[in-house]
Amino acid sequence: MQPDGSIFEKRRSLLSARFFEFGVEALLFFGNKNIRYLTGFTGDEAVLYLKEQLAVLLVDGRFTTQAKGEAIGAEILDCRDKVEAIRSVLAGDDVGAVGIESAVMTVDTYNKLNDGGLGNVALKPLAEKISEIRVIKDDGEIARMRRAAAIAREALLGIRDRIKPGVSEREIALELEYRMRQGGAEGVSFPAIVASGVNSALPHATPQERRIERGDALVVDFGAIYEGYHSDETWTCFVGEASDRQRDVYGLVKEAHDRALDAVKAGIPCCEIDRIARGCIEDGGMGAYFSHGTGHGVGLDVHEAPRLAAGSERVLEAGMVITIEPGVYIPGLWGVRIEDMVLVKNDGCEVLTGMPKTLTLI
Amino acid sequence: MQPDGSIFEKRRSLLSARFFEFGVEALLFFGNKNIRYLTGFTGDEAVLYLKEQLAVLLVDGRFTTQAKGEAIGAEILDCRDKVEAIRSVLAGDDVGAVGIESAVMTVDTYNKLNDGGLGNVALKPLAEKISEIRVIKDDGEIARMRRAAAIAREALLGIRDRIKPGVSEREIALELEYRMRQGGAEGVSFPAIVASGVNSALPHATPQERRIERGDALVVDFGAIYEGYHSDETWTCFVGEASDRQRDVYGLVKEAHDRALDAVKAGIPCCEIDRIARGCIEDGGMGAYFSHGTGHGVGLDVHEAPRLAAGSERVLEAGMVITIEPGVYIPGLWGVRIEDMVLVKNDGCEVLTGMPKTLTLI
Repeated sequence: MQPDGSIFEKRRSLLSARFFEFGVEALLFFGNKNIRYLTGFTGDEAVLYLKEQLAVLLVDGRFTTQAKGEAIGAEILDCRDKVEAIRSVLAGDDVGAVGIESAVMTVDTYNKLNDGGLGNVALKPLAEKISEIRVIKDDGEIARMRRAAAIAREALLGIRDRIKPGVSEREIALELEYRMRQGGAEGVSFPAIVASGVNSALPHATPQERRIERGDALVVDFGAIYEGYHSDETWTCFVGEASDRQRDVYGLVKEAHDRALDAVKAGIPCCEIDRIARGCIEDGGMGAYFSHGTGHGVGLDVHEAPRLAAGSERVLEAGMVITIEPGVYIPGLWGVRIEDMVLVKNDGCEVLTGMPKTLTLI
Repeated sequence: MQPDGSIFEKRRSLLSARFFEFGVEALLFFGNKNIRYLTGFTGDEAVLYLKEQLAVLLVDGRFTTQAKGEAIGAEILDCRDKVEAIRSVLAGDDVGAVGIESAVMTVDTYNKLNDGGLGNVALKPLAEKISEIRVIKDDGEIARMRRAAAIAREALLGIRDRIKPGVSEREIALELEYRMRQGGAEGVSFPAIVASGVNSALPHATPQERRIERGDALVVDFGAIYEGYHSDETWTCFVGEASDRQRDVYGLVKEAHDRALDAVKAGIPCCEIDRIARGCIEDGGMGAYFSHGTGHGVGLDVHEAPRLAAGSERVLEAGMVITIEPGVYIPGLWGVRIEDMVLVKNDGCEVLTGMPKTLTLI
């Protein structure tokens, strides 16, 4: 399932064809993920220069051999000082406007490049347009994300019996991550969130020594990486019993999740999906406790474009992979989040993640 | 061993006392690690504004509750759009030059802040000076790093018997990481590098399905995180047997490592340590195969200041924690790296990592 080199050339060609639209003659990339997407190189701290058919990958000595093996079709330059190396590449090439990944490039690198003088070259920030280049997934990417989600689900099902009162959040997180890796994940999408009781009221809790207790809400937010592609899913259950209020809130979040999911299809603006989920939770009187957006794109990054939140006018397109993850967090008490990762289609969506989302006592 | 709040106030005071030297009246931080160092907040995507005694931490809704619990003494502002929030904070405060963490801040954030107009405020890039603020470790930090290194060593010793022909790099990496977590690590410093045979010639290899074979060099580069602080160590062994050439190269790298280690003490420039290690490997005729610097600082980041490489004039000071990690990588054959993490002292150094570095057959 490793992509053959031609996919990277194809992606570079598609991107080069948009240079006129971007108002640039070349592009400079500093982010690992875009560089991987465009060349296949999986290492760190590289710089990619793209100009029509030319792809130059600047790496340091730690990555030269690896880059030559992975980035087929790209010219590999081994360099000690990347800023100096960029400068020489640009000087040797007669280009004017060069687009930069301004959402990734640091002010420091930008200043170092500019301060030495760049001749005719003008660096042009392209944050939004560049954030869009990976937004539509091809079949190979979707297959990898499906596999990542399956590995994650199997891992959670595999440790489900070990979730019981007395076990700590950290133990559960550790066993879950270990199982994902054993199941073929090359890594975890992010350190698993296992948040119980009062900790579940923190949307981004770090697993603690806290041992789970009967009556706890337990939020498990987790994902696996398979061949670079991430999964992202959140499963909330209750330990032994759920109070009426917990059941009500779970039902409300589930309804927000289901309604948003039902609305997902090509042509719908992202903000509309957020409005639907948020409206549902607001109608249930819990709007103040839904403190984050409804979802985000997933791919080589676990968070990427598009963003499903108020103000996000981006329209969904077939081939996007996004999360739907409403939540309610009552400070000092507990929280509930229900998240699936879905593939946008013309007539709806396909759920790629697989834990059942009906209310579960464990 | 969790730091009490006063350490963060003390660090902020020490930093504020340097504003005149920096030529600023306030500082803006965007990097998780510096924000953690200065406030205790362990979440993501926050912005910290420091002005004399005032510390304002801007977080989004996912982190509000956590920030209030962790960042004692800081004012917590819950905001949806951090750029807008920074703008209001700056507008309400009569400041001129505001230092920014330009090695972390992206061009995009910088442009968004500036494009809207900042009145009297001028953003002043402070890459180098800011990279220095965590360079000297206090006793609590050193204790955490010592503990992280001990957890890592115990984990590798614990799985040592499982390293034998037929076991894959990925299995070894997975078991090693699992043991570190079981042993109390809150995470791993970086995905463990377990590189065997031909893969060991890649300084930054990703563990593969390759099964180790008799005669392989096996490079294991690994580290644990304890209460935010990292360890970093590399152990190279040979599987079953080592050829004469492997023994020679190991001996050469070991000599470079030992000589550099012997030279470490307060007052010596970083480039001098690199020169000593590199000179040794060059004298052995392998200079072309030592394709990276000799070391780096370690702390809340696994790679931080200072850098031990040619051109790094920074002088070592007591309380720095650095790695010494010479290596020789022969493309297409195999490689050797030997790395320890050491605490710089006035009269030498103390090795914090603990795997024996004598030539080992396994």
